[in-house]
Order: sequence, then C-alpha cells, then structure tokens
Amino acid sequence: MDDRILFVDEIEESVSRLITLLCAERFAVLTDTHMSPLIDKLLGCESVLATAPRIIIAEGGSNKNIKTLTSVWEGFESSGLTRKSAVINVGGGMVTDLGGFAASTFKRGIPFINIPTTLLGAADASVGGKMAVNFGGLKNEVGVFALPYATLISTAFFDTLTDSEFFSGYGEIVKMGFISGWEKAIQLMTPDGREEIMQILPEALRFAVCEKARIVEEDPTEKELRKVLNFGHTAGHAFESLLNTKGYPIPHGEAVAHGILFALILSHTELGAESEKIQIYANWLHRSFRRLPIGCNDYDELISLMLNDKKNANRETVNFVLIKPGGEPELSYPATPEKIKSTLDIFRDF
Amino acid sequence: MDDRILFVDEIEESVSRLITLLCAERFAVLTDTHMSPLIDKLLGCESVLATAPRIIIAEGGSNKNIKTLTSVWEGFESSGLTRKSAVINVGGGMVTDLGGFAASTFKRGIPFINIPTTLLGAADASVGGKMAVNFGGLKNEVGVFALPYATLISTAFFDTLTDSEFFSGYGEIVKMGFISGWEKAIQLMTPDGREEIMQILPEALRFAVCEKARIVEEDPTEKELRKVLNFGHTAGHAFESLLNTKGYPIPHGEAVAHGILFALILSHTELGAESEKIQIYANWLHRSFRRLPIGCNDYDELISLMLNDKKNANRETVNFVLIKPGGEPELSYPATPEKIKSTLDIFRDF
Repeated sequence: MDDRILFVDEIEESVSRLITLLCAERFAVLTDTHMSPLIDKLLGCESVLATAPRIIIAEGGSNKNIKTLTSVWEGFESSGLTRKSAVINVGGGMVTDLGGFAASTFKRGIPFINIPTTLLGAADASVGGKMAVNFGGLKNEVGVFALPYATLISTAFFDTLTDSEFFSGYGEIVKMGFISGWEKAIQLMTPDGREEIMQILPEALRFAVCEKARIVEEDPTEKELRKVLNFGHTAGHAFESLLNTKGYPIPHGEAVAHGILFALILSHTELGAESEKIQIYANWLHRSFRRLPIGCNDYDELISLMLNDKKNANRETVNFVLIKPGGEPELSYPATPEKIKSTLDIFRDF
Repeated sequence: MDDRILFVDEIEESVSRLITLLCAERFAVLTDTHMSPLIDKLLGCESVLATAPRIIIAEGGSNKNIKTLTSVWEGFESSGLTRKSAVINVGGGMVTDLGGFAASTFKRGIPFINIPTTLLGAADASVGGKMAVNFGGLKNEVGVFALPYATLISTAFFDTLTDSEFFSGYGEIVKMGFISGWEKAIQLMTPDGREEIMQILPEALRFAVCEKARIVEEDPTEKELRKVLNFGHTAGHAFESLLNTKGYPIPHGEAVAHGILFALILSHTELGAESEKIQIYANWLHRSFRRLPIGCNDYDELISLMLNDKKNANRETVNFVLIKPGGEPELSYPATPEKIKSTLDIFRDF
C-alpha cells in the first residue's frame, strides 16, 4: 500500500515530524468553521496545528466551489506561502478535496498533507488523489489527480461525529468489503452498533484504505479497474441528488449505502448473485440507516439522473458495477430504464 | 526531443489526423477575439477548426485570470465536452496557457492540443507544460504542469504578427542560442531584418524548441537545470512591470531581450564574460527594439521588483542566471542591490 498513508495516535508529533521531513519554509492550516474550534479543543492551543496561520472556510458541501477555492488561494497569499511551503488540510472530504486542489495549483503545485476528520473522509477521500470542487451544478467537475505528501489518519477525531456521519463513513468501509469479497463484507457487518464498531474500527479502516490504495495504484486515472470503487454510486448519487432537490438531504455515504442495496438486487436478478447474502446486507442497512422516502413518482427523475451521470457513456442505458455469484465484480453492466424501474420496485419492498 | 511537437505545413490535415488519433468523442476550439476571425480567414470557413464549437475569450494578457478561466470551463460545459473530449487552443501564450490549465482541470483533466499563433508562443509557451493564469496581481500564480497531447507549429500564422510581436518572439529564440553557447547566439543574430529572419525561421524555431524540450525533459518541475531558461527574465520581468505601471507597456519578449543585455553585463563584470560578444548583442538589440525609457529614479522600484520576484528565495540579494567565459551558464548568482544599481548604469550607457 501507499506508504504515505499513516495511521497515528499522536497527531501532534506526526505533523511536526512531517513538516521537518518536507523542509517546508512555511506552512498554513486549512480547515472549516466546524473543525476550527475542535482543533484547539482536541490538540490544545499550543499545538503545531493550533499556532500555524489558519485559513478557515465555511463548512458544508455547498461551499465546495470556485468562490471558496479563490478565497483559499488568497489565504495562501496572505499567509505568505512560498514555492517551498506546504498546506495542511484538516477536515472532512470537502476540506481535503478542495484544499488538495488549491495546493496542487498554487504556484503550479506545493505539497499538502491531509488529515481527514470524518470516517468517510478517512476511508474514502484519503486515498486516490481525486482533488476537486463542484462547478456548474456538477459534483467535482473541476479538479486534478494529485497525491498528498502524506495522509494522517487518527481515530481521535471520530468521537466528534454524529451517528449519521459515523455510519455514513462506515458504509464506505463495508463497500470496500464487498469489493474484496462476500466474506469480508459479512465480517464487517457483524459488529452491532457504534460501540462495537469502534472496537474493530482501526483494523477495518486500515483494511479499507489498503484495499482502495491497491486498486488506485493499479489504475490511477480510472481507465478500468478503478471503476469498481463506484460500486453503489450510480444509484447512490441519484438518491442523493433527488432527495437534496426534495429538501431532504442525506449524507453521501448514506446514499451510497442504499445504492449498494440497489446494485446487489440488480446483481441477483441479472447475474444470479446469491439472494441470502443480499438479505444480510439489507438487514445491516436498515439497522444503520433510515429508510429512504422514495415513491413510484420519483422513478422517472431517478432514471434521468442516472442516465446523465458523468460516468455514464451512453444515454440509453445506465452502466452499473455489479457483483457476480462468488463475489467477482462486473465493472460495467448496462441496464435499461425498464430494468431500473423493476429493480426500484424490489428495492422499495426490502 | 518531445515527439508531440509537430512542425506542420498543413494545419488542417494535422488537426484532423490528431483528432482521429485521440479518439475524441467531441472537441471544441478555444481562441481569443483577435484570432477568431483570422482562423476563418487563414483556413477557410469549411475547415475543421472553423466548424467546431468555438469558445472565444477577450484578447490581452490582462484577461489571463480566474474570471476568464471560469468562463472557459462554462464554455466546455455548454459545448457538451465529455471526459473523452479534447480542446484545441489556438492563439498566443495567453490562450495556450489558460486553455491548457482549463483542460487539465476540467473533469480532472481532458487532453488538449496547442496551436501557437505567435512566434513567442511557438518558441516559448509551446514547450514545458507550464499552464497557468495570473492571480492576486502575480503572474502565473495559479496553474499546473501538464503536457499538451500535441503542439502544432506552423509559420503560416506569423505573417499576421506586428513587428514588435515578431521581434519579441525572435528574441526568445536568440535567448535559447545563448543557453546553448555563444556561437549559436551569434549565428542567430546574423540575419538583418524581418525578411532575412523569415528565411531561417523554420530551422531557428526548430532549434529553440528542441533545446528547450531537452532542458525541460531533464528537469520538468524546475528543480535546478531548468532555471537556465530564466536567463534574462529577472531584470526583464522588472522592466516589464515597471513600464507597465508607468503606462508604457512593452511585450514580454522585448522586456526579456533587454533583460538579457543586463544579465550579459553582469556576466562580464562579475564572472569575466567576454565584452566584445556583449557588444554584438547590444548592437542586435538596438537594431531590433526601441531603447527603454528607464532613468536613475527608477532604480529603487526595479530593485524592489527583483527582490520580490517569486523565483527569488532570499530577500537581500537577487539571483541571476549568468553566463561564464566560454559560454557555460551559472544558474544562480546572487547580486546585491548596490551591484544591480551599478549594472543599471552600464546598461543605460549601452
């Protein structure tokens, strides 16, 4: 796995050591309005992260845009960052994605260190080097592929998460389980509730990150294999957009967790994947998350969203990542709108 | 040399062939208000470049900014560009730099082809993969290193250039001569006037591009060797900024051509470079360009500009690329403000 992903107990000590290794002339911390007070609270006001120049952006995914990006570049300027400086991004995926893009383009690229503070950020955004902001109403439409100098993962931050944020992130770990095979997925769904999950979390997170790093290393720019990471995302993104428009926003990880159930059902009906395992997942899903308020009236809108997804090459069928009997992934299975409708019916029955 | 730089007679045919090679689903042409009518005039309204969706930005270096970049991303969206599309940038360095940056970040990067239409663009901006826009009052402050899929160089465009633009660009070629050794520089300064230069231009341009490509290939991210390309730029940038502020703007290439004289004088007084060769350059410079309206009252401002250049690591001396006796470059020679003042005196006497 990528040796630049470090699981640490002592954030403070690791940051100091990395800054020394980087020989950075200066550095600045980028974070958001939610995390900024928590950094001081968790690490103390004397810590390296608390005393460095700090650029604070407004929290929330709606701020992952060009306007915020511009304000971050301005923050780099006013913090006096040079070509030999570094940026430390402390926050969820929004902060690490936007901060990574800002650093990768400032003076044509200065190094950055990501410290994900959410479970989703640690499991997902910490690997793969996809740094971007939203543009023109589209998610991550403008950005680059760029690797952080290092990613520091500490479970210390996860106590600050709400249950919804916690399970959203854990859903991403379960997704990596499916990609690696049924057995791993079932093992990850065994702990019951947040406390039991916390017991196995360091190990589970390490598994998810290593597995993702392995896939990304083989296919950094998403030509083929990396598509497997989109498991659950095709329907998941559509659920997320639809519910957002309806004024009932849900976290990305929660949407993907439901998208996985959708993909598993399609894997069963189209490829013959084992139904009893789908039942295990459906039980885990409904223990962890609310049901989605989706009715037959939403089908047309959901299908239109899936057809127009940027990952979808043609406009008549929708490509899904599915799982074959035995656990092997199928990277690109085309489903017609009719097939999607009948799968949504079964999805709602679960 | 980089085989992606193609010297072509038939732009039309080459573009069609590259589009086929790229397997691009769609493509759009990015150009500016100056070049847009010339494309149709030079190539005919039926040409591939004339019939493709076209994004037109306002001409002039002052538009090389985030606002224009944003409008270009919007143009990509409205032209329906997908991940498997390509962009063709047709214009001077401003269009190819900004368009290259826009394409490299659109959907985290789609391929682009650069067609430089100025001599400076062909000789300088066509190699090296430095794609950027200005930000916060600083030149090329935000950008990436990204290589075009191909660069097409055709001398057909150069007839449309003014004398000032033409000699600015040729100055860049002479600069590459100095980097490669005194003999090459003197050979390039032999043709007298635009017509004589046009005779040797294809060969001279090919030399300059190959030489630059060789240097960039050895040091793509400017750790050491590539600094040699900044020969003449330290004083040149300061002249350019000063005269721009004074309402007497000169082209970048012209400023660098004067900056080379400054660097040669310093090479003589500090390192003992041969004075008769400097005289040859001074004669060529004054045959090709106006004298700069710089007086002793401008010295402090010029020194302050040089000290604050982003390539300058410390704030007490200014680092110059110089040339040693024999022709070998010295990549980083520190000069004090006093030394710069006395060199400006000699510079003005020439």
